Amino acid sequence: MTTHTLSDPAARHHSEACTIGVDFGTLSGRAVVVRVRDGAELGSSVHEYRHAVIEDHLPSTRAPLPPDWALQHPEDWRDVLRTAVPAALADAGVDPARVIGIATDFTACTVLPTTADGIPLALTLEWTDRPHAWPKLWKHHAAQAQADRINALAHAHGEKWIARYGGKISAEWQYAKALQVLEEDPAVYAACARWIEAADWIVWQLTGTESRNTCTAGYKGIHQDGAYPSPDFLARLHPDFADFPATRLEHPLSPLGSRVGTLSSRAAHWTGLPEGIAVAAGNVDAHVAAPAAGAVENGRMLAIMGTSTCHVLNSTALAEVPGICGVVDGGIVEGAYGYEAGQSAVGDIFAWWLRQGVPDHYRAEAEASGENLHQLLTRKAADQPVGAHGLIALDWMNGNRSPLVDHHLSGVIAGLTLDTRPEDVYRALLEATAYGTRVIVETFEGGGIPVEEFIVTGGLKKNALLMQIYADVLRRPVSVGISEQGPALGSAIHAAVAAGAYPDVRSAASVMGSVQRYAYVPDPARADAYDALFGEYRALHEHFGTGADLLLHRLRRIRNTASVATTG
Amino acid sequence: MTTHTLSDPAARHHSEACTIGVDFGTLSGRAVVVRVRDGAELGSSVHEYRHAVIEDHLPSTRAPLPPDWALQHPEDWRDVLRTAVPAALADAGVDPARVIGIATDFTACTVLPTTADGIPLALTLEWTDRPHAWPKLWKHHAAQAQADRINALAHAHGEKWIARYGGKISAEWQYAKALQVLEEDPAVYAACARWIEAADWIVWQLTGTESRNTCTAGYKGIHQDGAYPSPDFLARLHPDFADFPATRLEHPLSPLGSRVGTLSSRAAHWTGLPEGIAVAAGNVDAHVAAPAAGAVENGRMLAIMGTSTCHVLNSTALAEVPGICGVVDGGIVEGAYGYEAGQSAVGDIFAWWLRQGVPDHYRAEAEASGENLHQLLTRKAADQPVGAHGLIALDWMNGNRSPLVDHHLSGVIAGLTLDTRPEDVYRALLEATAYGTRVIVETFEGGGIPVEEFIVTGGLKKNALLMQIYADVLRRPVSVGISEQGPALGSAIHAAVAAGAYPDVRSAASVMGSVQRYAYVPDPARADAYDALFGEYRALHEHFGTGADLLLHRLRRIRNTASVATTG
Repeated sequence: MTTHTLSDPAARHHSEACTIGVDFGTLSGRAVVVRVRDGAELGSSVHEYRHAVIEDHLPSTRAPLPPDWALQHPEDWRDVLRTAVPAALADAGVDPARVIGIATDFTACTVLPTTADGIPLALTLEWTDRPHAWPKLWKHHAAQAQADRINALAHAHGEKWIARYGGKISAEWQYAKALQVLEEDPAVYAACARWIEAADWIVWQLTGTESRNTCTAGYKGIHQDGAYPSPDFLARLHPDFADFPATRLEHPLSPLGSRVGTLSSRAAHWTGLPEGIAVAAGNVDAHVAAPAAGAVENGRMLAIMGTSTCHVLNSTALAEVPGICGVVDGGIVEGAYGYEAGQSAVGDIFAWWLRQGVPDHYRAEAEASGENLHQLLTRKAADQPVGAHGLIALDWMNGNRSPLVDHHLSGVIAGLTLDTRPEDVYRALLEATAYGTRVIVETFEGGGIPVEEFIVTGGLKKNALLMQIYADVLRRPVSVGISEQGPALGSAIHAAVAAGAYPDVRSAASVMGSVQRYAYVPDPARADAYDALFGEYRALHEHFGTGADLLLHRLRRIRNTASVATTG
Repeated sequence: MTTHTLSDPAARHHSEACTIGVDFGTLSGRAVVVRVRDGAELGSSVHEYRHAVIEDHLPSTRAPLPPDWALQHPEDWRDVLRTAVPAALADAGVDPARVIGIATDFTACTVLPTTADGIPLALTLEWTDRPHAWPKLWKHHAAQAQADRINALAHAHGEKWIARYGGKISAEWQYAKALQVLEEDPAVYAACARWIEAADWIVWQLTGTESRNTCTAGYKGIHQDGAYPSPDFLARLHPDFADFPATRLEHPLSPLGSRVGTLSSRAAHWTGLPEGIAVAAGNVDAHVAAPAAGAVENGRMLAIMGTSTCHVLNSTALAEVPGICGVVDGGIVEGAYGYEAGQSAVGDIFAWWLRQGVPDHYRAEAEASGENLHQLLTRKAADQPVGAHGLIALDWMNGNRSPLVDHHLSGVIAGLTLDTRPEDVYRALLEATAYGTRVIVETFEGGGIPVEEFIVTGGLKKNALLMQIYADVLRRPVSVGISEQGPALGSAIHAAVAAGAYPDVRSAASVMGSVQRYAYVPDPARADAYDALFGEYRALHEHFGTGADLLLHRLRRIRNTASVATTG
C-alpha cells in the first residue's frame, strides 16, 4: 500500500483528492468528506454518542455523581471513527483510495487520564468504577474550588502567564480538573501516566503514537512562552502536584495543520481509509472552524454558535485582555496571536426553555404547520418590537465563561408579568446571548484588540431572527459561514495542509472555506432600542456578576448543600 | 307578601331559617345557602362571567385597549343573581320561603360610572363604545400615573389621611381610576352621576335604592374620620376634580352587617327569593371572609388566598403602618380598627407558570395519574429539601401591593440553570409568595400591630405543600378556615345579622364560622433553611423594589412604549 500524500501542491487542481474532517461535539461526532481542490463537501455522517453526557451515574454503577459533574465515554468517540467515517464515505460515493488525509477536532477542555500507552483508565478493570478515572467533559464544573485557588495563587505569586488568560484560568481546564482528581482520588491520580486532551487522544487512536497540539496546550494547558507553570508554583497548590506537567503533559508540541503521523492499520481497519495517509495534529472544534468560514485573517471574529458559543479572533498584537479565555501564539493559525473567548451556554439555554414545556395549543400549532418548537417560538417572537416583552435576562444558565470566568453564576430573568408568554421569554433569551456577545466584543476592543468583522458559524446560524438580533445588538453586520459543518470542514482543510496539498492553513482556507459577507445588517432604530436595553443588561451583569459575595454564589452553595444532604 | 326578618333572635335556634351569601369574584360569582342556626352550607352554585376580564377590546368594538387595562361587564354580575342564586337554592333543596336575608361581597376596588339611577354608562347606547364608561376591575393598573400624583401631592400637602394608607394610595382605587377617566375622557366623567363600587352597585340592584358601605368607602374611597379629601386638595390634581366626592360619592355610609333595604320585586323575580327579605350592606370579598374563618377576634390575621391574596386583621390599636393598604374604623367588624394588606398575585402566578406549558411527558404522567398539572408539579416539588432548586423569585408578576404599593414592578427569577425543571420554578414561586407574606407580617409587627395567629382561607388552602411552606417560612402555625366558600359564607353570616338573627357579626361568626386551628406547624430545620433564603429575598426585594430609578420601572416603560408603537 502506498501513502497518498501529494508531493506537488499543484496536483490538487487536477485531482479528485479528498480529505476527511471529523468533528467531535458534545453529543455526537460528525465526519465529512471534502474535495481538496475546491472545498466541496461530498458527503457526511453523524454518530450520536451512546452514553451522551454522563451526569447522573457511571455506566457500571448506580452511585450518583455529585452536582456539576459531566463525564464522557471514550468508546463513544472511537465509535465515531468506526461508523461515521465509513458512512460519510458511502454517503459521498467516494472511493477511499482518493482520501489523502484525515484531521479531527474536539470539544475542549475535554481531558482524560490514561496509561502510558494511551489506554483510558476508565476502560481498565481496575479503575472503571472510579468516577475520577473517566474523561471530564468541557462542561464538568465541579473543579471551581481548585480553579479559584489556582487563580488566587497565580496572582499572589505574580505568575506572568495568568494575564494571558484574562486574569483567570477556568474550572473547565486541565489544571483545575487534574488538581480535583489529585485531591479527591489520589490513587487515580497516581495511576494516571498521561493527562491528555481528548483532541490529542483521538489522534493517538488514529496514528498509534502520542502527539500534543499547540492549541490545547496553550489554551487549556497553560503552556506559554515555551513552558508550563513552574514546579515551585504547583507545589504550593499541593506537594504532589509539583511534577504534574513534567510527568503527565510534557511532549513536543505540533503546530496546527502539521502532519503528526500516518493512519495506523488498526485505524485504517476501523475507518475503511487507506493505511498510511496523513493525520493532522489535534485541534479544537471552535478554532478549527475559522478557516472554513474565511475567518483566519486578522481582526475577523468568528463565533461558533451551538449549544455554547466560542469566539476566536486572530491579531498581530499581543494584549492582555481581562476575562478572555486566552491568547496563544499560533493558537488558531501559525503566525498570529489567537484569541479565544466564550459563552458557556447559548443554544443550550434556548433548548432549556423548551424543556420547561410549551402550552398544548402551541404544540398543536407546530404540528399543524410542520414546524419544530424552536421554529414556532421564533416565528411568534419575530415580529415583536424591541423591548415589547418587557424582559431582560442574564444568559448564565451554565455560568459565564467570558469575561467573568465564573461557572457558579446562574441565570436571571427580570420583568416577568402575568402577560409574559413562552415566546416572550424565548426572545429575551435570544437577546440575552446577544448582549453577552456584545460584552465580549467590547471587552476585546477595550483591551486593544479590534474586531473588524463578526462572522457566525455553527448550528444557530440558520435562525434568521437570532442573526438579525445579533446584528442589531452589536450594531454591526453579521457575516455567516456557508458550510453547514464548519468544524468538520475546518478539520478537512487542516487535513489537506497536513497531506501537503496546500502550504499552509490560510492558503487552504482561501480556496476551501467560504462566507456570506454581511448577510445581516443592523437596523438603526432597533439598534438604538437595543442600546438602552444593553445598558440594563450591563447593570444587571455588574450587580449579579461582580463583587465579593454574590447572591448567585450563595444560591449555588445552598443548592449543592441541600442536594448532597439528600443524595449523600 | 310578608317580610321574613326574625323579630326574635332566639328563634334561630328552633328554626330552619336560611340566608344567602353571594360572592362576586374575578371570573365568577358564587351563591351559597346557609342555615342560620349553625352555619351549615346547604347548597351552592357558581356562575362564570361570560366576558370574564375584558383586557383586549370592548365587546362592541375591535379597537385594542391599552396595556394594563382590565374591565368587566355589569350584565355578567346580574347574571349571577339570575342563575347562581336559584341554582344554589335548587342544589340545597331549600324552599325559598325559608330564606330571611341576602348579602353580597365583591372584588374591590372594582368601580363603575353610572347615571343618577344607577344605570352603568357601559350599558347605555351613548357611552357603550367608550372604554372609560366600563367598570374598571380591581386589577386595572393603568392609573398608576394618577396614583403617583395623588400620593406626591398628599405628602406635599400634609394630608393626614395618607398615613392611614401606609403612605400610598393605590392605582387600583377609586380616586386614581376616577382621575384617569376625567383626564382621558372628560365627557364620560361629565356623564358620570355616581362613581360607585360594584360592591354597592350590586346591592342597589337588589334593593332598588343606593347605599354605600363603610368598608369600601374607607379602604378604597379615602373616607377617614367622617370625611373625604378636601376640594382644595382635589382641585390641585385637576380643577374639575374638586367636587368629585361631593357630586359622585357622597351618601350616608352603612355599617357592615346592617340592613340597607329589602329585596325589590325585580330582584325577587331574578333570584326566586321572597320580596322584602333583608338585604345587607355591600362588602368586600376579603373582609367578609373573616367571620367565616373565625378570624374576627383582634390579632388574628386572615389571608384570603386565591388568584391574589388579601390580608385582613383587627386591632384595638390605631397605628400608621407604612405600605399597608389601609386601616378603617369598623372596616371589618364594628368596634375595631380593620387593617388590610395584600399581594397582587399569588395563585395567578402559579397559573401563569403552567401557562408557559409543561413537557410532554409531564402531561402524559398527569393524565395517567388523574392529576391536574398543579397537583403534578406540587407532587414533584414536594419532597425537595429547602433550597435544593437553587432559585429565588420575586412574586411581583402582577406588581406589589404591600408594602411597596407599586404595580409597575414585575417578577424576577434568579438562580436558573440548565438543570432547572418546571417543578423547581413552580416551588420557587410558591415560596416567593410565602416570602412576600412574611414581609407583610413583619411590616405589621414592626408597625406595632401584633399578629397573634395566621389563618388561611380561599382556594389555595387545599394545597398542603403551600400551607406547609407558609408555616415554615413564617415560623408560625397556619390555621385553616373550614368552609370551602369563605367569602360567600361570610356574606351569609352578614345576611343573618342584617335579618336580625344575631345581634352582631362577632356573635354570628362564633356560631356560623369555623376554623381548623394550627393545621400546619413549622418544622424547625426547614424554618432555619428558609430564614437564610428569606434574607436573600429581602435583599432582592430591596434591590429591585426600592430606590429612585428602578430597572423594573424602566422595563415597564420600554415595554409599554414599544407596544403602543405597534398597536397605536
